[in-house]
Amino acid sequence: MSGNTFGKLFTVTTAGESHGPALVAIVDGCPPGVPLSAEDLQSDLDRRKPGTSRHTTQRKEPDEVEILSGVFEGKTTGCPIGLLIRNTDQKSKDYSAIKDIFRPAHADYSYHHKYGARDYRGGGRSSARETAMRVAAGAIAKKYLASQGIVIRGYMSQLGPIEIPFKCWDAVSKNAFFSPDPDKVPELEAYMDQLRRDQDSVGAKITVVAEGVMPGLGEPVFDRIDADLAHALMSINAVKGVEIGAGFASVVQRGTEHRDELTPEGFLSNHAGGVLGGISSGQPIVAHLALKPTSSITTPGRSINIAGEPVEMITKGRHDPCVGIRATPIAEAMMAIVIMDQFLRHRAQNADVQVTAPVLPQL
Amino acid sequence: MSGNTFGKLFTVTTAGESHGPALVAIVDGCPPGVPLSAEDLQSDLDRRKPGTSRHTTQRKEPDEVEILSGVFEGKTTGCPIGLLIRNTDQKSKDYSAIKDIFRPAHADYSYHHKYGARDYRGGGRSSARETAMRVAAGAIAKKYLASQGIVIRGYMSQLGPIEIPFKCWDAVSKNAFFSPDPDKVPELEAYMDQLRRDQDSVGAKITVVAEGVMPGLGEPVFDRIDADLAHALMSINAVKGVEIGAGFASVVQRGTEHRDELTPEGFLSNHAGGVLGGISSGQPIVAHLALKPTSSITTPGRSINIAGEPVEMITKGRHDPCVGIRATPIAEAMMAIVIMDQFLRHRAQNADVQVTAPVLPQL
Amino acid sequence: MSGNTFGKLFTVTTAGESHGPALVAIVDGCPPGVPLSAEDLQSDLDRRKPGTSRHTTQRKEPDEVEILSGVFEGKTTGCPIGLLIRNTDQKSKDYSAIKDIFRPAHADYSYHHKYGARDYRGGGRSSARETAMRVAAGAIAKKYLASQGIVIRGYMSQLGPIEIPFKCWDAVSKNAFFSPDPDKVPELEAYMDQLRRDQDSVGAKITVVAEGVMPGLGEPVFDRIDADLAHALMSINAVKGVEIGAGFASVVQRGTEHRDELTPEGFLSNHAGGVLGGISSGQPIVAHLALKPTSSITTPGRSINIAGEPVEMITKGRHDPCVGIRATPIAEAMMAIVIMDQFLRHRAQNADVQVTAPVLPQL
Amino acid sequence: MSGNTFGKLFTVTTAGESHGPALVAIVDGCPPGVPLSAEDLQSDLDRRKPGTSRHTTQRKEPDEVEILSGVFEGKTTGCPIGLLIRNTDQKSKDYSAIKDIFRPAHADYSYHHKYGARDYRGGGRSSARETAMRVAAGAIAKKYLASQGIVIRGYMSQLGPIEIPFKCWDAVSKNAFFSPDPDKVPELEAYMDQLRRDQDSVGAKITVVAEGVMPGLGEPVFDRIDADLAHALMSINAVKGVEIGAGFASVVQRGTEHRDELTPEGFLSNHAGGVLGGISSGQPIVAHLALKPTSSITTPGRSINIAGEPVEMITKGRHDPCVGIRATPIAEAMMAIVIMDQFLRHRAQNADVQVTAPVLPQL
Repeated sequence: MSGNTFGKLFTVTTAGESHGPALVAIVDGCPPGVPLSAEDLQSDLDRRKPGTSRHTTQRKEPDEVEILSGVFEGKTTGCPIGLLIRNTDQKSKDYSAIKDIFRPAHADYSYHHKYGARDYRGGGRSSARETAMRVAAGAIAKKYLASQGIVIRGYMSQLGPIEIPFKCWDAVSKNAFFSPDPDKVPELEAYMDQLRRDQDSVGAKITVVAEGVMPGLGEPVFDRIDADLAHALMSINAVKGVEIGAGFASVVQRGTEHRDELTPEGFLSNHAGGVLGGISSGQPIVAHLALKPTSSITTPGRSINIAGEPVEMITKGRHDPCVGIRATPIAEAMMAIVIMDQFLRHRAQNADVQVTAPVLPQL
Repeated sequence: MSGNTFGKLFTVTTAGESHGPALVAIVDGCPPGVPLSAEDLQSDLDRRKPGTSRHTTQRKEPDEVEILSGVFEGKTTGCPIGLLIRNTDQKSKDYSAIKDIFRPAHADYSYHHKYGARDYRGGGRSSARETAMRVAAGAIAKKYLASQGIVIRGYMSQLGPIEIPFKCWDAVSKNAFFSPDPDKVPELEAYMDQLRRDQDSVGAKITVVAEGVMPGLGEPVFDRIDADLAHALMSINAVKGVEIGAGFASVVQRGTEHRDELTPEGFLSNHAGGVLGGISSGQPIVAHLALKPTSSITTPGRSINIAGEPVEMITKGRHDPCVGIRATPIAEAMMAIVIMDQFLRHRAQNADVQVTAPVLPQL
Repeated sequence: MSGNTFGKLFTVTTAGESHGPALVAIVDGCPPGVPLSAEDLQSDLDRRKPGTSRHTTQRKEPDEVEILSGVFEGKTTGCPIGLLIRNTDQKSKDYSAIKDIFRPAHADYSYHHKYGARDYRGGGRSSARETAMRVAAGAIAKKYLASQGIVIRGYMSQLGPIEIPFKCWDAVSKNAFFSPDPDKVPELEAYMDQLRRDQDSVGAKITVVAEGVMPGLGEPVFDRIDADLAHALMSINAVKGVEIGAGFASVVQRGTEHRDELTPEGFLSNHAGGVLGGISSGQPIVAHLALKPTSSITTPGRSINIAGEPVEMITKGRHDPCVGIRATPIAEAMMAIVIMDQFLRHRAQNADVQVTAPVLPQL
Repeated sequence: MSGNTFGKLFTVTTAGESHGPALVAIVDGCPPGVPLSAEDLQSDLDRRKPGTSRHTTQRKEPDEVEILSGVFEGKTTGCPIGLLIRNTDQKSKDYSAIKDIFRPAHADYSYHHKYGARDYRGGGRSSARETAMRVAAGAIAKKYLASQGIVIRGYMSQLGPIEIPFKCWDAVSKNAFFSPDPDKVPELEAYMDQLRRDQDSVGAKITVVAEGVMPGLGEPVFDRIDADLAHALMSINAVKGVEIGAGFASVVQRGTEHRDELTPEGFLSNHAGGVLGGISSGQPIVAHLALKPTSSITTPGRSINIAGEPVEMITKGRHDPCVGIRATPIAEAMMAIVIMDQFLRHRAQNADVQVTAPVLPQL
């Protein structure tokens, strides 16, 4: 399989660069009969869109998605769904100055060594712009999964040094940060304003949760659902770490502490993050991602050009000072795509299975 | 693709349970002409083997691997390589008491809900025993990669609360913990002895490093080399988190701090962990894994049986008090398999590419 | 993998129905640095286009393809190439009469039973319209393969009962039938005119040849190059049979007759059709496809509706009386896509291989 | 995916050469709860076995299969099933004379050019010996499909020039030829005896039929069930052509003749061979394969050695004068594997679909 296709049964194939004519995707394997329209996809795209607050990049893209195929009379047909988003606000002249320079912490150097050349405008294929298509495809998965009682939501759990405790889901959509704690928002805004004055950037941590997932999803030994999630989430630009449940905190935990005991009323804890032996247990699936600070900052830095000569590097253009701020919808989308794919794979092999043991209610 | 096959070009397919007749694997896609013998595989298998110290499980398995195909006159032919390891020391009577019980923090509950039944003996397919085949397959990859100047090595970087600084590679093979600091070993031994008396277990952190990797490996956007690594490492039993380079420390880092500047003499740091934009940069690829504490402990715990009735659970049998102790060879193997697969994929598409820009030397 | 993606390394993913907004494709895995423009694709699309002669369907589609991504400054970048063709001449009112009827020899009945409903307009996804995208993708493969000295061409070798001997390649592009014998054309025209008056249709046989293929392409045992070709060609609408080399004539051949002997000057015959043991031998790869007669004919026939009641069926609309007439470019495209994929797969695994035995020249 | 794995959900991975230690396979994706034992596989293996009549190769292999994993208490667990068959009767000294020679119509030349060397003993991986594993894997598929009412059977429909009409299924298992007409057997035996005296070989045609297949199986546009079948059947050694239904006879058929009309009582014919638009229609799926004459014949022929020098070639060893004689179980196995894989893929996507239209009974 190619690197631009994700999934085995519910497959998402994308193409498109930051400054090319358009972004395009083909989503294959969606069951037929699912009500679907461009509006269903647009709301998640709007959550991701640049230019919606002073804290994110100032590029203005309407990001309007068009459905090209796979939907008839308002429902999916089971045939592949083509999606298209035209790029309209490319400012290509912003980038010609860097065409022969490798910007530090960007993909320039590695893309050049892989392909011998690169579309230097705005990061080309390495730009986070391609994630728009992941969000559109993820919206299709979310729609179907909702009909199965599965809900996937995320939030920012840390911005730089500021930890953000979870208060409620309602708060998340009411601020530009996807913060689940409305009281933290002023602190976050002040921090970001200072960051902009410092001409710097900072990392973030995102938490994404899937509730209502039935037990049994996951394809051991290699395509365990947590392995698939790690793959999907680590494939998002700027992600440097992925944890499930207790994650790296498990390192110092004792077995007596980490294990989630079972009672007829349910599990007593969820350090496992909803995954046991690589298979969903019916408990909420909880994942955390670490995003590195934005690479495009206006503070000068040392680098080299393609001849190997030293240069001083200043990035211009319009950039996010914290990529984490727009990452939440992308993480939700990737989790939805994984769970959709695993749902179909499990149904394929095990639709005949009769299970007598009761399913424990969610924690 | 099925869940028991890993890789696109260098593919590893495994089968086998803890208490079945044998473990088996088929490794496909290895280039022809590579010198290979069972001895090449045996040394890594011996590093992983149970029963080699008092700190690991007391099950005695010779883990002798036999090559069934794909090698002729001492060299690979390019045809698929079959591998076989017979199970000899199953003590199946140890497990009949738990056949109707879901042990907490084990895969019993989720396997039961997936398949309707499970091979309850020793964890069946969910047992870490299947990792023997990953190590054997990984040894084939390591052999080929060594001929390309790529070396993959790992060590334990933390045992429970005890952080282990890196001193030297030589130390790693000289103690049962894969500790890179010989001076820490007495402290680790004392800690483990106490853990055994407490009838408990603890987690660990493993670090694995690939050196000599040429720039250009990785298949964006979904099969970035870090995404593939996350998939491969998270698929190892008991892993709950994966980081690349600075990992979760990136969350609090500023962009000016995180970015690895470039000079003609080389990169000035390696927070990226050897991966930029999902493609290798030529710097050492550094990954860390978090392993949860062993689930099989002899301290009683609450659970339920398949009728949903509460039971008190005591695990018997022979178990690792810290699975991290044997995880290092498995992590090395998975990293080798990923890099092998990515190496072939890169060569497939880009063998014609001429790159004039110089490759920066390793940090 | 999904059913709308073909290939392992050079992958082609398509979407789009006969009467939807557009056809779309994503081609992934093309090496970078290949000169490519929409004009390169348009010439093959024009060869396939409907409405170009009185012998093919009268639907007028400009079939203008747009490249959405993957090309920069006139060359491929190595990133996925998105392609778009808008549908402009759908006459949807032609089809409402048949929305609840299963037309015989069409896919209506089987699509209905698979998906529970179907886009009944013009055959929806089952329409041959989707093959436009295969031709566009195949043109990309043809371009790269030409740079490797590989040329892929096809012709009609039989129209109904009329066998067409091969005279020369030049003739093929000079008539509407892709006939390699100019002297046969009047007979073919007369036959087709009579067929239209009879309100009937007939089958055809297409021959497609790849010359200049180096020995060594093919991935035994399952992805032999002839097996891949059979898959690719049988996936074309209306194909009912595929042969390689002597094909079904091999049934009656003696071993002494069938075998292609080798001399230092070359092979003495090519009954093998360029494939030995599933791997290319360096001889021309020769495949033949059998196409069934068009299902959409205006002669009434018996059928049923979705309630299971008998109906009399007359197809209206604009249809090819012989689908074979436009099949040649599609067969060429599929052969190009297979050889491209196999070329990259072979290079991945065997780029290091040194072969001392001489390559025999083509027959 | 690698070339030694077939299938997307029900995947079969094989390894093993003619003269290596063993043949091995891993079958993944089989639903749990299927009763399975080595005896279930052995009967089909015995049908394929060499040395069972004077008309097939005289190599004596017990072909005893061992199940290594994936079965517990007599039923499949859903975990991958490992299979092993030891080679016992290799006569390797038979082949040393040909180690530097390319035998005509064998894979020697193409394997040498692909891998730079080859296991010359008995054809190595190119030998038909590997098909034993396909038959074992196919037996697993057959078992499950039988529980769904699907039966797959084949027979020889032509031996060289002798056409064999279908009389009854009972006859097929009662003679060494898999002839469905008992009256033809003396003629076939006499022909074969003469062939042996002539030191020659001849081709054959096999017909394989799947009955009871529900409508809806097939994954357009590329993984149509007929395309998958063509792939699977063409991948069998010595196959040079595949037809579905009327196959190459469709070329001369009129549309009015070829189309299978529908009535409430059923289809009136089955020229389609059970496949419409690449999806099963519920009618028997009928495929025919053309097998070329055995390449290993004792009549001398011209060839070259690896230095490119001319040699005269006489094959010794123990060979089938007509490979078609043992091909029937292999063709059945491949058809079973395809239908199994397609069955799971269809269930994955379309398990929710409600179809009100009645399913027509089989012709």
